[in-house]
Amino acid sequence: MTNLVAPSLVALDWGTSSLRAYLLGPDGAVLDRRAGPWGIMQVQAGDFAGAFATVTAAWQARWPELPALASGMIGSAQGWVEAPYLECPAGAGELAHALVAVPGTRLLLVPGVAQWGATPNVMRGEETQIAGALALRAELHASCRIVLPGTHSKWVTVTDGRIRHFTTYMTGELFAVLRGHSILGRLAAGEGAPEAEAAAAAFARGLLAARDAPGGIAPLLFSARALVLAGALRAAESLDYLSGLLIGDELRTALAAPPETAGPLALVGDAALCDRYARAIALFGGPDPIVLGDTATSGLWRIARDAGLVAPSASCQE
Amino acid sequence: MTNLVAPSLVALDWGTSSLRAYLLGPDGAVLDRRAGPWGIMQVQAGDFAGAFATVTAAWQARWPELPALASGMIGSAQGWVEAPYLECPAGAGELAHALVAVPGTRLLLVPGVAQWGATPNVMRGEETQIAGALALRAELHASCRIVLPGTHSKWVTVTDGRIRHFTTYMTGELFAVLRGHSILGRLAAGEGAPEAEAAAAAFARGLLAARDAPGGIAPLLFSARALVLAGALRAAESLDYLSGLLIGDELRTALAAPPETAGPLALVGDAALCDRYARAIALFGGPDPIVLGDTATSGLWRIARDAGLVAPSASCQE
Repeated sequence: MTNLVAPSLVALDWGTSSLRAYLLGPDGAVLDRRAGPWGIMQVQAGDFAGAFATVTAAWQARWPELPALASGMIGSAQGWVEAPYLECPAGAGELAHALVAVPGTRLLLVPGVAQWGATPNVMRGEETQIAGALALRAELHASCRIVLPGTHSKWVTVTDGRIRHFTTYMTGELFAVLRGHSILGRLAAGEGAPEAEAAAAAFARGLLAARDAPGGIAPLLFSARALVLAGALRAAESLDYLSGLLIGDELRTALAAPPETAGPLALVGDAALCDRYARAIALFGGPDPIVLGDTATSGLWRIARDAGLVAPSASCQE
Repeated sequence: MTNLVAPSLVALDWGTSSLRAYLLGPDGAVLDRRAGPWGIMQVQAGDFAGAFATVTAAWQARWPELPALASGMIGSAQGWVEAPYLECPAGAGELAHALVAVPGTRLLLVPGVAQWGATPNVMRGEETQIAGALALRAELHASCRIVLPGTHSKWVTVTDGRIRHFTTYMTGELFAVLRGHSILGRLAAGEGAPEAEAAAAAFARGLLAARDAPGGIAPLLFSARALVLAGALRAAESLDYLSGLLIGDELRTALAAPPETAGPLALVGDAALCDRYARAIALFGGPDPIVLGDTATSGLWRIARDAGLVAPSASCQE
């Protein structure tokens, strides 16, 4: 932790399975960070106050007046205090005006965003990543598609800096439950990890199979097992093939939908996963994505600024 | 157990999670039955001999010379003795000539059936159910489609009394892993079972949503949660809706494929599940199915007869 700059904000990315905390300087730069297994499903007996105190203890001791801002499932009905969903269209400005305070602390929670109506959908955490992506790249503001791959992948249409519409794909969770609890995972369980090249080839094979299945992968899922029994796929590579099938099913459907925007496509989230999606999108002949990685701290900083929790950054004042 | 008729065969339907044993009379009728949690995944330390002895003890004591025939996963690589897959096309005659003996017993195992080539697929247990369906209903012999709903639903094309081609849908296993291990199951976990009418309506709603999603249900799966959060679906009914989505995805794909036969459609397997599929097929405007229920003992009897393990039944000799 540097001592040269006085910090401005404690920023928390607090999800289901992890808590990542950042100490941000007056320009939003990360001065220090902490992380731990205090996701909302891990915290013992719902002791969120204890987890918050533990992860920020060193910072609170030195700067007890620091404001804190958290995004993610901590604001859900299963979290610390519920921050009700904000309806689309919503951007950093709307989020900043709907923060919910945690009583007895200096912590504020960012609400999730919901799309009601005929095709309801919800997000919590992604709205902050999106605010971060827009803060980082001005060319996304007018109109873009932002893809956030993960447990529940989101395909989001943004116009005028606000979330307009989105769709959720349970791709990551489907992969996890099939790997962990279905017959498809059992085949690979005794095997070592495949070589990188073989894994990439199996992933591409799954992608292509899904791309060429216009009705969806329901009749193909079992092929992750049958191909192994037929000697046409190695057991160690079957999970990469399965990952290709599932991500391919997501891409085929999402890219086939008429885009609601002519703007660029951006990938936001875990770097390795963004890379996997970038390769897959290329194989599908999709647009070249702008790969941004994790943008949570940028989003938290942007929302904190819009809420007046921190002063506009030095660079903006110049 | 009746004492009036001397039995002819011990017939075993021995799968992953259960063992069902039947004592069959000289015309194939069930004289007695036993069942227990001795599926191949449950049997301690692979003690299949012990499970077999326990379940058939009373019968073996009285008729130690009785032949026994088993179908299902007991003949898989993870079972007692492997009965290698027989390649399509295959019917009761081919199966009867490929039985594999378990050394030291009077038990024979029915092999599974495989379809190799570009779209490999395997079944084990269903080939016997199919032999039973064909034995029960002469009009299926020339040409038909047989649907066996379940953990791994099979859609099977039969011509000339033999399995020609088949597709597997992991519908039942997908439902089980999503209910047991995903966020979709958690919503309903604290709820009681819905009323029958509400459950049927939610199931139909899922079916229709899947029917009207030509590209597959990848973008719809999360709606089993989002609709609940939006107040548009009750948590207690969300699993019936999910079941509708998954079965609907199977039906939309399977019924869209050009049928390889103009013959009737038959439903084979668990009675409640057959009923669920019959309702769903009607909603999809599919053909009126012949609902046969469980046909395992008929199949085992037919294969035993073709193998010469038992004499042709009295009714045939008349």
